[in-house]
Amino acid sequence: MTIIFYDLAARDGRRFSGNAWRTCFALAHKELKFETRSIRYIDIKAIADGNQLTVPVIEDGSVIVRESWDIALYLEEAYPDRPSLFGAPVGKAYARHLNNWINTVLSRFMLGIVIKDVYNHLQSADKSYFRQSRVERFGKSLDEMVVKREECLLQLRDALAPVRAAIAMQPFLGGSEPLYPDYLIAALFQWGRAICPVELIEDSDPLHPWFGRMLDLFDGLCRKQVAYWSPPQLTK
Amino acid sequence: MTIIFYDLAARDGRRFSGNAWRTCFALAHKELKFETRSIRYIDIKAIADGNQLTVPVIEDGSVIVRESWDIALYLEEAYPDRPSLFGAPVGKAYARHLNNWINTVLSRFMLGIVIKDVYNHLQSADKSYFRQSRVERFGKSLDEMVVKREECLLQLRDALAPVRAAIAMQPFLGGSEPLYPDYLIAALFQWGRAICPVELIEDSDPLHPWFGRMLDLFDGLCRKQVAYWSPPQLTK
Repeated sequence: MTIIFYDLAARDGRRFSGNAWRTCFALAHKELKFETRSIRYIDIKAIADGNQLTVPVIEDGSVIVRESWDIALYLEEAYPDRPSLFGAPVGKAYARHLNNWINTVLSRFMLGIVIKDVYNHLQSADKSYFRQSRVERFGKSLDEMVVKREECLLQLRDALAPVRAAIAMQPFLGGSEPLYPDYLIAALFQWGRAICPVELIEDSDPLHPWFGRMLDLFDGLCRKQVAYWSPPQLTK
Repeated sequence: MTIIFYDLAARDGRRFSGNAWRTCFALAHKELKFETRSIRYIDIKAIADGNQLTVPVIEDGSVIVRESWDIALYLEEAYPDRPSLFGAPVGKAYARHLNNWINTVLSRFMLGIVIKDVYNHLQSADKSYFRQSRVERFGKSLDEMVVKREECLLQLRDALAPVRAAIAMQPFLGGSEPLYPDYLIAALFQWGRAICPVELIEDSDPLHPWFGRMLDLFDGLCRKQVAYWSPPQLTK
């Protein structure tokens, strides 16, 4: 059975939702057949059972699951015969740690870099919803949010030090093969490259070749996407 | 063969080195016979081959290893038949991530809480060395370093959110049993409770019962130590 995967798309089919990329990677990793339905923000309330507020959402037959973390747990449990997303209980702890850390620390820096670019790339029907909801959520205008863009970029790169240390030891956070911890970080960068010309990681960064490897996974699932920058293809 | 483990001790045998606690946990986890030699800062240059600058240091026959991370890697490699410290490659990445994050983020908050208490508890022969080396390293007096103590405590608790999220899912970061990621966090708290009355984690914190479990490991290795506060014994 084919899983329906709802993802956001901006103009030119740019898929900029970091949270949805987590799910996209997870579905590919689990080797599940899935069909991506690209929607706009204003379409979310009409998808699946009509009770959804955010993306990603998956429909697996009659089962509807929302929120990237819950989707990862669902897929791991519903498809135990497919490759594990976590590898071991300690991998699940690492994934949960990263998930929380990204949501509370790294995403803040990312928003300070890319939120205006997200707006600029949205399909026109999404623009007023996006602006209004973000101004309400963050208490300032989109322009005000990116005033310290350069500083946010440096803070993001600085905050990534623990990931950099981990990736310096082995090809992927998961070991010789990627696991959900890798997808969490890659999804963050994928969010950026889809809609913002700022290269989040420098060429000399150990994360650069790692992200190149991530782009090549699953037959170039990420590399094929419309995007502004790409570490070179290094594998093979 | 018994491994010699050099650890720092303050007055009343208080073992306050967080880095040494990482090694102590690792030796116990690997089920290795070891003998702890409690020394003062001023004794470090006389131990092992006389080339040591910091603690922990282990002597395993003719092999001398320093730095907690290198010791963990050494033990894992030298004793592959003993219980693994990392469980899986993804556990090694998590451990490396935590190691870096603690050293660069959490330790800063810790110093702002406990550095004056470390000084106050040192054996008298260590005091002038400690004060002078720390003033040189941090560019301010010990009193100046703890001016924002309350704030540092709140920042530490706040920064621990990702660990809290991970531990809410399973008994240990390692899963049903502890692994090196657990020891890294426990060693941080053990540093605090050895020499500072401030309870780093609140009773209502999910990390509180977890730390209680950590204190009980290895026949109460940590719980038996001279310390200011202890989450209650919950296991058994």
